Amino acid sequence: MVENVLLFEEGEPSKELRGGKGASLATMTQLGLPIPPGFTITTDVCISFLKNDNQYPDGLWDSVLTNLKSIEEKTGKQFGGVENPLLVSVRSGAAISMPGMMDTVLNVGLNEEIVKVMSEKTNNPRFVKDAYRRLIQMFSDVVCSLDMDRFEDILDRVKDRAGVEHDHQLTEEHLDTIIDMYLHTFKFEYGDDFPTDPLKQLDMAIQAVFKSWNNRRAINYREHEGIPHDLGTAVTVQSMAFGNFGDDSGTGVMFTRNPTTGANEIFGEFLINAQGEDVVAGIRTPIPIPQLKDKMPDIYDELVEYGNKMENHYKDMQDIEFTIEEGTLYILQTRAGKRTGTAAAKIAYDMVEKELLSKEEAVMRLTPRDVEESLFPSVVWQNQSKHIYFDVEDLEHQLQSKTINELTKDASTKKAELLGSGLPAGPGAAAGHVVFNSDLAESIVKGEIEPPFDVKIWRTYKGEKVPSMILIKKETSPADFHGMVASAGILTMRGGLTSHAALVGRQIGKRVIVGASVSGLELRSDSLATESGTVISQGDLITLEIFEDGLVYKGQLPIITPDELPEETQLILDWADEFADIKVRTNADKRNDTQVAVHFKATGTGLARTEHQFFDALQLVREMILANNSEERRRVLTDMLEYQRRDFVDLYEVLDGKPCTIRLLDPPLHEFLPPELELREKIWKEHLHPDSEESRVLRKVLYYQEANPMLGLRGCRLSLLYPEIAEMQTRAILEAALIAKSEGIKVIPEIMIPLIGFENEFRESRKIVDRTAKQVFKERGEEIDYHVGTMIEIPRAALTADKIAGGVDGADFFSFGTNDLHQMTLGFSRDDVGKFLPFYLENQIIPSDPFQTIDEHGVGKLMDLCVELGRNAAAESGKYLHVGICGEQGGDPASIDFCYRIGLDYVSCSPYRVPVARLAAAQATIRNGPVDKKYGKNPSH
Amino acid sequence: MVENVLLFEEGEPSKELRGGKGASLATMTQLGLPIPPGFTITTDVCISFLKNDNQYPDGLWDSVLTNLKSIEEKTGKQFGGVENPLLVSVRSGAAISMPGMMDTVLNVGLNEEIVKVMSEKTNNPRFVKDAYRRLIQMFSDVVCSLDMDRFEDILDRVKDRAGVEHDHQLTEEHLDTIIDMYLHTFKFEYGDDFPTDPLKQLDMAIQAVFKSWNNRRAINYREHEGIPHDLGTAVTVQSMAFGNFGDDSGTGVMFTRNPTTGANEIFGEFLINAQGEDVVAGIRTPIPIPQLKDKMPDIYDELVEYGNKMENHYKDMQDIEFTIEEGTLYILQTRAGKRTGTAAAKIAYDMVEKELLSKEEAVMRLTPRDVEESLFPSVVWQNQSKHIYFDVEDLEHQLQSKTINELTKDASTKKAELLGSGLPAGPGAAAGHVVFNSDLAESIVKGEIEPPFDVKIWRTYKGEKVPSMILIKKETSPADFHGMVASAGILTMRGGLTSHAALVGRQIGKRVIVGASVSGLELRSDSLATESGTVISQGDLITLEIFEDGLVYKGQLPIITPDELPEETQLILDWADEFADIKVRTNADKRNDTQVAVHFKATGTGLARTEHQFFDALQLVREMILANNSEERRRVLTDMLEYQRRDFVDLYEVLDGKPCTIRLLDPPLHEFLPPELELREKIWKEHLHPDSEESRVLRKVLYYQEANPMLGLRGCRLSLLYPEIAEMQTRAILEAALIAKSEGIKVIPEIMIPLIGFENEFRESRKIVDRTAKQVFKERGEEIDYHVGTMIEIPRAALTADKIAGGVDGADFFSFGTNDLHQMTLGFSRDDVGKFLPFYLENQIIPSDPFQTIDEHGVGKLMDLCVELGRNAAAESGKYLHVGICGEQGGDPASIDFCYRIGLDYVSCSPYRVPVARLAAAQATIRNGPVDKKYGKNPSH
Repeated sequence: MVENVLLFEEGEPSKELRGGKGASLATMTQLGLPIPPGFTITTDVCISFLKNDNQYPDGLWDSVLTNLKSIEEKTGKQFGGVENPLLVSVRSGAAISMPGMMDTVLNVGLNEEIVKVMSEKTNNPRFVKDAYRRLIQMFSDVVCSLDMDRFEDILDRVKDRAGVEHDHQLTEEHLDTIIDMYLHTFKFEYGDDFPTDPLKQLDMAIQAVFKSWNNRRAINYREHEGIPHDLGTAVTVQSMAFGNFGDDSGTGVMFTRNPTTGANEIFGEFLINAQGEDVVAGIRTPIPIPQLKDKMPDIYDELVEYGNKMENHYKDMQDIEFTIEEGTLYILQTRAGKRTGTAAAKIAYDMVEKELLSKEEAVMRLTPRDVEESLFPSVVWQNQSKHIYFDVEDLEHQLQSKTINELTKDASTKKAELLGSGLPAGPGAAAGHVVFNSDLAESIVKGEIEPPFDVKIWRTYKGEKVPSMILIKKETSPADFHGMVASAGILTMRGGLTSHAALVGRQIGKRVIVGASVSGLELRSDSLATESGTVISQGDLITLEIFEDGLVYKGQLPIITPDELPEETQLILDWADEFADIKVRTNADKRNDTQVAVHFKATGTGLARTEHQFFDALQLVREMILANNSEERRRVLTDMLEYQRRDFVDLYEVLDGKPCTIRLLDPPLHEFLPPELELREKIWKEHLHPDSEESRVLRKVLYYQEANPMLGLRGCRLSLLYPEIAEMQTRAILEAALIAKSEGIKVIPEIMIPLIGFENEFRESRKIVDRTAKQVFKERGEEIDYHVGTMIEIPRAALTADKIAGGVDGADFFSFGTNDLHQMTLGFSRDDVGKFLPFYLENQIIPSDPFQTIDEHGVGKLMDLCVELGRNAAAESGKYLHVGICGEQGGDPASIDFCYRIGLDYVSCSPYRVPVARLAAAQATIRNGPVDKKYGKNPSH
Repeated sequence: MVENVLLFEEGEPSKELRGGKGASLATMTQLGLPIPPGFTITTDVCISFLKNDNQYPDGLWDSVLTNLKSIEEKTGKQFGGVENPLLVSVRSGAAISMPGMMDTVLNVGLNEEIVKVMSEKTNNPRFVKDAYRRLIQMFSDVVCSLDMDRFEDILDRVKDRAGVEHDHQLTEEHLDTIIDMYLHTFKFEYGDDFPTDPLKQLDMAIQAVFKSWNNRRAINYREHEGIPHDLGTAVTVQSMAFGNFGDDSGTGVMFTRNPTTGANEIFGEFLINAQGEDVVAGIRTPIPIPQLKDKMPDIYDELVEYGNKMENHYKDMQDIEFTIEEGTLYILQTRAGKRTGTAAAKIAYDMVEKELLSKEEAVMRLTPRDVEESLFPSVVWQNQSKHIYFDVEDLEHQLQSKTINELTKDASTKKAELLGSGLPAGPGAAAGHVVFNSDLAESIVKGEIEPPFDVKIWRTYKGEKVPSMILIKKETSPADFHGMVASAGILTMRGGLTSHAALVGRQIGKRVIVGASVSGLELRSDSLATESGTVISQGDLITLEIFEDGLVYKGQLPIITPDELPEETQLILDWADEFADIKVRTNADKRNDTQVAVHFKATGTGLARTEHQFFDALQLVREMILANNSEERRRVLTDMLEYQRRDFVDLYEVLDGKPCTIRLLDPPLHEFLPPELELREKIWKEHLHPDSEESRVLRKVLYYQEANPMLGLRGCRLSLLYPEIAEMQTRAILEAALIAKSEGIKVIPEIMIPLIGFENEFRESRKIVDRTAKQVFKERGEEIDYHVGTMIEIPRAALTADKIAGGVDGADFFSFGTNDLHQMTLGFSRDDVGKFLPFYLENQIIPSDPFQTIDEHGVGKLMDLCVELGRNAAAESGKYLHVGICGEQGGDPASIDFCYRIGLDYVSCSPYRVPVARLAAAQATIRNGPVDKKYGKNPSH
């Protein structure tokens, strides 16, 4: 049998034997860190104990005592001694952490006598009594499994009577009352006195840990997860260190680098003569860590040295908790520190420079979230955990020249007031004036009216400086679209992550928080009220901060908006491109958007929709729809040709030779017509004649109306019925390419036919394109290459991909339109899932929102099949079928991983998503290794 | 080399050598039928000819002359002779018939001299000259490939100048003019005179047949169909027989059995001293064939004898074309005769009795269409081809006692006037009074108003005698539903087979013709007008006959409506059941419908929808929807429980132990709410307050409104959000089963969860059902078995069938909801395809309407995969997964064949479709042989 009680400094830091926490403490100790001494009883003891009718193995208790002795020697304290009493923590630790296992018990070793001694020593009887109160409570809970309600009740009643809200407001006398009542309750509930003998406390705590291995919840969890039942748990006993033994004591947190900027400078905060609880309670304001250098220079140097050591060992920035007890530094915990996206990139890049990391490791170290975040505006906090922020003006003046760390020394700071929270629908941060009305928001931005409030915050909108506003609504509808565009941020009371506000807000790049009523926010007719009574009126300032949560703060918090990726992020993404074996294109149909994507190094356009060209020429489109025959339609379309051609030349110029996939008109025609209700209302109110223009339009509206427009007359079905539309578009695409060619730009347009379900639909549509191309080339006297492919968005297309891709007139490329493909494969109308998808996600009926992440088991299976069928059929005709994805999931890292695994050639996403996708593409490649391209052969690979 | 020119009586009747037509003539000749003599030049000559630079093989022409001699001897005529001239036909004939091959040339051997001789002989110069005119035209076309437009032009111009419409109205003089002009045109176009030498004519015709083997169209066709190019075509030369050589000549058609009833009596018609053209022209009224017995008793006996011979040989009722030339009978053609469904069954059954057919052959002989037809009303024709019908009153008086054949002798008959035609949307026949307004139709049927016309035709409606009406509309909309129900038939001007009128009319079992405007019918404000000027007004009588076409006749034609399958059909279906290895259930949710299905021997209910129970209690349902919480909903649902339980007891009683699959509520809740427009109109017009009931309902309507309701909040999604609905339904189903049990009926309810896409949706829904069942059993103190399964209607469900069927709490059965499965897999909203599906079908973009016949390549692939995944997963849990289909395609024979091939256990269809499905099920089994049930094992097989 191996040694079954190990000091931290003894033996391998094995997780199996010591559990996660024990192994980590052993590692740190063995690396030379000043960890409060302790030992671990290994997992095999647990098994033996449980097998043996809850009896310790022979000699175990002696070993515990021996090791305790060793702690006493190292600390100079005695467990149960009254001179300098040693307190310990007792915690469980299995190789795999699991719910149901016993929690930690702190302050083991305290009793009334020792409380007295320590009160004198710390000169802080309140603190010591509170520690004792906590011990009794924790012990009752985790060791003796007593009903915690009774203890909470006592605490609450005393607080009520004292008229205080927080624990830290309790006086010594209150605590005496509580302790007395706790001890009585313990005896009443447990049937025995609370153990005053420290060794008895320790013994009971150790046994409780072992027994908790076999509690119901733990067993269930192991069964569910397939974890063996014979692993057992370890028990770690560690001496406690106190930072409140006087002015040579203290406690704090140190980051080895700046977690906001990633700068290689230590960062953090500390309190002299304080315990961790004091920091959490927030009654004293902590001091920035650079000031420790002045106050305790040796400790400071030591801390920096340990920081470096840990960073070099873990090859990552560390977040270190420490306590100084009477001039001795103890490290309580060290772990990878949380950081902003910008910091993450800088740290990883710096570590490559220092040769701590390889480029590949750096690429894997950055998270997609890191990249995403670094393009969002964010609040500049002085202190993240306590929400202390810099004064906006201070920050504006000084941020140019100083690091945030330097600022912490002298900038004036304030505490943010949190008003409420909701779901984080559109990430980033925004500060602005509250408005409750979309029309008002638009009128202000358009300068049509004077803002009915004193404008303090501005933002840039279409090159103009306009008031920055936060639109607050119960929920939004399409009627609020203009108001959403006019605002910097949107806050709704209702709705989930798939509500109108969430979907549309995200699409137009706004900061959005939805469903905030859960946090007690209430929208009244002209104000927003919190549960505690704060009222926010029109024009008042609020700030939204949306990352992992959606938080609403009162007032203006300072925000930095990056207009470019941080340099280090760019450099790491360049490395990423070298690793990635799946390309990243963009979904963009306008010059500006395409420019952004190209700037972010998209390798081409994966989806240029042409709808906007029709919406831009709405009057013409309506004329076309109202036309009675193909001739009339053709005449109107001729008018549109010129605009569209110019648009395409624009795109080709920006792309400068990169591939460009252009999708022919997709939406149903009724989307271009006015709403039925609007027409009817006018006809009713004005008693219009059935021959009136409105009545005529209404009849067309009714004709084109559909029960399920998503599955109606749109996409290629339109081209087949009204070939003149596809002819005009093909002409515009190809004539534009010839113009670009004359400017020295090589373009191979990729014309994409939407909504193909049957091979004949594709072949007939292709005929229209090919015959138009022939005509254009004949007229112009020159030819260019072009490809014709299809969206894969109807399940049948995926199922019959071999037919669609086969033969010489088969599709040259596929692009998965995963939005519609999910809608049809799952039977989820994206516009309508709002009523049940939140319920489904909440109740884990489905694992994730399929409109964000590809449903791998269902839709993914279809995609995989499609690639296999399509590539093989193309290979039979000696072709390689290019396959990409242009649905919104194309910018989602998990989906990109999947796309890589099924052998796609590229993903395509919105311009601002390109950097994230580039990282995800590289990570997918590295993570999965080379994918066996079982389907056909890519000649370019 | 085999003999390459064969008389009909020589050698094997091989299709490969003689082509289809030549082989058939040889067969009949060799069976002893009096076929006009002739010979066939075999296919190998063709190959040799083409290989050899279009030269006949040595000795070929001599063989032709020798065989021609043989014909001359048999007929006593001479080819090119002026005494008794022999005319022949020349036709091509390959083993596989193909388009592009040369057509027949008749009357070869005529020239001006012979025209004179024959004119005298027949005393009918008009007939002979017309024959010569036809020879020149056919020869120019098929032998010399001249442009036919020039010849048609000449004919048209002469007809115009003569002021006549039909060819038969041309006089001898007109024909002289035409012949003269034809011969000039021939020379001008061909560059040579029309050959007057009969042998030259024959030579040119034979060579033209050979050459036509290699024309472009024939080559393309062979390439497309994979037919070898070296088969070649045969040439058949046959003497022509004439029925217009005097009163001892004639021509006619004979059926060996009555094609309407199937009675074993000869049937048909003939004309004395006439050619086939005279019959087609319809200028003389043919005589029923029994009268031939009096006029030419020997010929009659001979004809009957040959009929029997042919029937025994081909084992099927024959349709025989014959000509009598100067007292000699010639059989021109014999083939399986067309017949009604009733006749088909009687004939097949009689032939089994006579041991001509096996039961299996009889089952295969009947077509699904035969069974279908025999339940539809149909017009009783005296003469199908000329649309001569019996006087309605005559028929009513006499049909009881006489066969139709007997009736033909003395019943008074009339000629039907065809007004127009459209698409055959709802098959059968109906006569009635024309109405143009749905409200009027309903008011008349409900007896609310006196019919504004003199009622002559009645029908039974809900047990009452009501006026029979035909509703005529431009197109129908949901607003016409009550009018459609009130009418016997529906005729629309617009729309295709998927229009509202077609779909709904078929569903409610009406005779429907749609899109009749293509035939020139025009709907005016209060009348219907034909192109030729006939006007039909309200109350006028018309008759619809819908089988392969949709035909509209003026007046009342006699109609027989079967109220039961013909006896022989029933007997053959009983045999069918013995062969069938796939069961037939029904889709029925009401007592009456279920009774019909059980009467037609359905083996159970495959789909009992529960929607009608909610629509029947619309007020309660609205209350439920307007309820604000689950408690209020529960209260309303309790009121509904009783009704639903009673409904289920009804079904169980009728089914008497047969299985019954009941589907939980499926449609979206907004279907139960009033339309938005109606509410808005009321609110606007009456200036209602926002707190009014209407406004409140409107808000709910808006809340439940969906962009694509098909993919929205319905099916299991409803049960999961509002479990109280599924709880109530489960309770009603199980309590009803316990009541039935107490009546001695064993019921194992099959509860079907609709719209499952994710396994968790199924498992969570099943939990609701199981926990309710537990409660019901506890309350009642007794238990019964029940199964819980799911519709497979969302593509994802099919793709993940293994997950849904796996484990003990997986689905017990699957039922393909192929309506929705097609909607989603194809992206075809059934309500909206009307705008493009007709175009798709017309342009062969898709092969058939997927809402009638399963799309085998797309949806079928998914179904096959689903069965495999589901059965295998169930097998792993030791279960057999029952799989059926309950979409509308379940009653379609081609779809049933497919369902059999993928191993389904049953198909389910509407009650009146059950007989068709039973036949199709048997035919699928026989046609495909045993299907290797590769997926799992069926313990009951």
